[in-house]
Amino acid sequence: MKVPPVKGTRDFYPPDMALRNYLIDGWKAASLRNGFAEYDGPIFEYLKMFQIKSGDEIAEQLFSLKDRGGRDLAIRPEITPTLARMVNQQINSLPRPIKWFSVPRLCRAERPQKGRLREFFQWNIDIIGIDDVLADAEVIFTTVDYLRQLGLTSEDVKVKISSRKLLAAVLVEIGAGEDELDSLYVLLDKKPKLPPDVFAKLLAEKVPDSAKADKIQDFMAIQKVSDLKNTVADKGNVENAVNEMAMLVHKLNLMGVGEYCQFDPSIVRGLAYYTGIVFEVHAVDSELRAICGGGRYDNLLKDFGGPRISGTGMGMGDCVLEVLLREKGLLEEKLPKRQLDYFVAFIDEPLTFETKDGLDTIEDVAVMLAAQLRLKHKSAAFSYKSGLSKQLKEASSQNAKKCIIIGAEYENRDIAIKDMATGQQEIVNVEKFMEGLKS
Amino acid sequence: MKVPPVKGTRDFYPPDMALRNYLIDGWKAASLRNGFAEYDGPIFEYLKMFQIKSGDEIAEQLFSLKDRGGRDLAIRPEITPTLARMVNQQINSLPRPIKWFSVPRLCRAERPQKGRLREFFQWNIDIIGIDDVLADAEVIFTTVDYLRQLGLTSEDVKVKISSRKLLAAVLVEIGAGEDELDSLYVLLDKKPKLPPDVFAKLLAEKVPDSAKADKIQDFMAIQKVSDLKNTVADKGNVENAVNEMAMLVHKLNLMGVGEYCQFDPSIVRGLAYYTGIVFEVHAVDSELRAICGGGRYDNLLKDFGGPRISGTGMGMGDCVLEVLLREKGLLEEKLPKRQLDYFVAFIDEPLTFETKDGLDTIEDVAVMLAAQLRLKHKSAAFSYKSGLSKQLKEASSQNAKKCIIIGAEYENRDIAIKDMATGQQEIVNVEKFMEGLKS
Repeated sequence: MKVPPVKGTRDFYPPDMALRNYLIDGWKAASLRNGFAEYDGPIFEYLKMFQIKSGDEIAEQLFSLKDRGGRDLAIRPEITPTLARMVNQQINSLPRPIKWFSVPRLCRAERPQKGRLREFFQWNIDIIGIDDVLADAEVIFTTVDYLRQLGLTSEDVKVKISSRKLLAAVLVEIGAGEDELDSLYVLLDKKPKLPPDVFAKLLAEKVPDSAKADKIQDFMAIQKVSDLKNTVADKGNVENAVNEMAMLVHKLNLMGVGEYCQFDPSIVRGLAYYTGIVFEVHAVDSELRAICGGGRYDNLLKDFGGPRISGTGMGMGDCVLEVLLREKGLLEEKLPKRQLDYFVAFIDEPLTFETKDGLDTIEDVAVMLAAQLRLKHKSAAFSYKSGLSKQLKEASSQNAKKCIIIGAEYENRDIAIKDMATGQQEIVNVEKFMEGLKS
Repeated sequence: MKVPPVKGTRDFYPPDMALRNYLIDGWKAASLRNGFAEYDGPIFEYLKMFQIKSGDEIAEQLFSLKDRGGRDLAIRPEITPTLARMVNQQINSLPRPIKWFSVPRLCRAERPQKGRLREFFQWNIDIIGIDDVLADAEVIFTTVDYLRQLGLTSEDVKVKISSRKLLAAVLVEIGAGEDELDSLYVLLDKKPKLPPDVFAKLLAEKVPDSAKADKIQDFMAIQKVSDLKNTVADKGNVENAVNEMAMLVHKLNLMGVGEYCQFDPSIVRGLAYYTGIVFEVHAVDSELRAICGGGRYDNLLKDFGGPRISGTGMGMGDCVLEVLLREKGLLEEKLPKRQLDYFVAFIDEPLTFETKDGLDTIEDVAVMLAAQLRLKHKSAAFSYKSGLSKQLKEASSQNAKKCIIIGAEYENRDIAIKDMATGQQEIVNVEKFMEGLKS
């Protein structure tokens, strides 16, 4: 019986797995050197966990299931609710700041398309318990540190940064009511995806006062933090938000990643829970969706029954990233090759050798030596085929660094070791050789 | 709103994650040095995939769900059906032997108990396309290689090996009908878990002829392959199966893991699909369930719509293994500690330093240097707290190898570097220091 895979999922054959590991191992390495500790939660949680804060879009895309007791569960579409649950459970014993990362497998029942699958991996980093904008800077820095490690330059990708606080303060200053903000965010979020005239028309419908609409357009056109002070009222909440943004830019410059970052007031972020700095990374001159997004949240822990402790974080999926790296030609040469320390081959003669236990065939000797190498934690292979030339081909295809060749000289416990890069070959005593290996 | 985790799942806080990574990274390392290539499939498949070959126990324990089109899916309770599907899909292009491993997350809706959870990780290795018993030996060797790496000796664990072929041949030789074999297997499988008299009673019910029952008991009592020839008829299928078992033992001795292995005819393995060598690893003198199990299967690919190509493999979960390692005291000292290359601290004075861009505070300098170190792929941390003694404590708790201390001498771009192990401190020029680091 032949059953196909489910659409929107991926089979990871060894070459695909090598790519997945390359991305995820890179996420892990960047997280660790930036001081984040790894966590993970279960692949499913109670369904209601994902209905508390997730945007409507995510809540609609849940893969839900029931356990045998009839309780409603769902496969996680994101790990943030789990993070909130776990932090709240141990809030009094966890040392702060909580600097955690995770690389969860997530599932969303969406229509599969380029850069969007029903099952994917997502890098998450969060710093919880630090109000200072320095924590936002550290999250953005860690993101850039990883992208830079992949070979992406500031010509390839930009971190577009804005602030919910600034946006709110400016809109209120212009005359918007607090209750109008959420619907204005939804509109402003669409600006980069719409032709200017379409956006202007939608804005006019929402904000009939053309003087106010113009002010919003002026604000949305600002490209430098230093221009903010000339455009928006420099007082109260606006001043605080502008100063915070200026401090963030200062920290990012200090950390050496300023060239990757730019102020962009059109960054709003769909999720309702961001309350401060928000950012997205976009490929320059590309139709691709955002590579990642993040920002500061004040109410996450509280929404999940915990205290009101602020955090800031980032999430990056593997699908868009892979498309971008492929477009930029940054995958083939960077992917680590499969490596083998030793391939153990034998010549085309049916030799046997006396041992204390009886007679070993030449094939047996190859198996024995490969096993000894592995027990010393060297990677080693033997062949299930005979014929030296076939075996040497196999050694090459497995990218072996050295090939051990067993021949008649094994009578004296000598083996030939061939360096596969230089082709040079030397004869050594097998016991001495094995003793010389570091375990 | 506070939502609890689902019973039988685990939250992996950083210390738990370190343990999970220790086990899984070890699985990966042992697989790679033994020449297996990594694969993975989706977390869910069509429900019917798991109803084809899985034993009834597994089929009852499925977490099933529907996609938005109403199709029946299930979270994978094992990866073997996915392996069969993936191999069949590319059967003509995959080089053989197919030597693959995977470390999937699996879910089973069973009652949580010691060593058994609803969500767990399982190491799987398979060699497909080699009929030779050498492949069975390689699977067992790889399993032992990993257990040995954990610090488990042949006093701690034993690979108990039997053969479905041998069992069938002996039972038929004794007089069982082919159609009685499956129900006899189920009975014999229970022998190690039952008191001898209870087993004898059940056997008598199943095999009323006491001479036959005695012969079965005699066979089940054999502990050495060399004793087989004296006990069972030495002809036809029995002879072939005995010779195969003897060859397996020879290969395992040759590979240096003979002391870990013993013949045990009571090993039957529940799953219906094993057809040749079968084995389980058990902790010696322990009530624990098997640590892992495996064996040869002839019909797996065929059952999933592919050709009749034989394979041999092994699966090991993380839950029983963790219990065993904890019992043996093999976790604490072996777990890799969190490591930090550099902690960047600063003295308790509100100093500022002139730079080309203006003035940097002493805190800024610490952030800047930590960022520079990270961009050179060193792990580095700065503190969100001030106060040198607090920072040095943080450096210790993060297990930093070196601590950089910024003080007044930064005026001349000098920094102090303290070796946290020896306590020794030296003053160096920061530019020279950074240049000297390998990126």
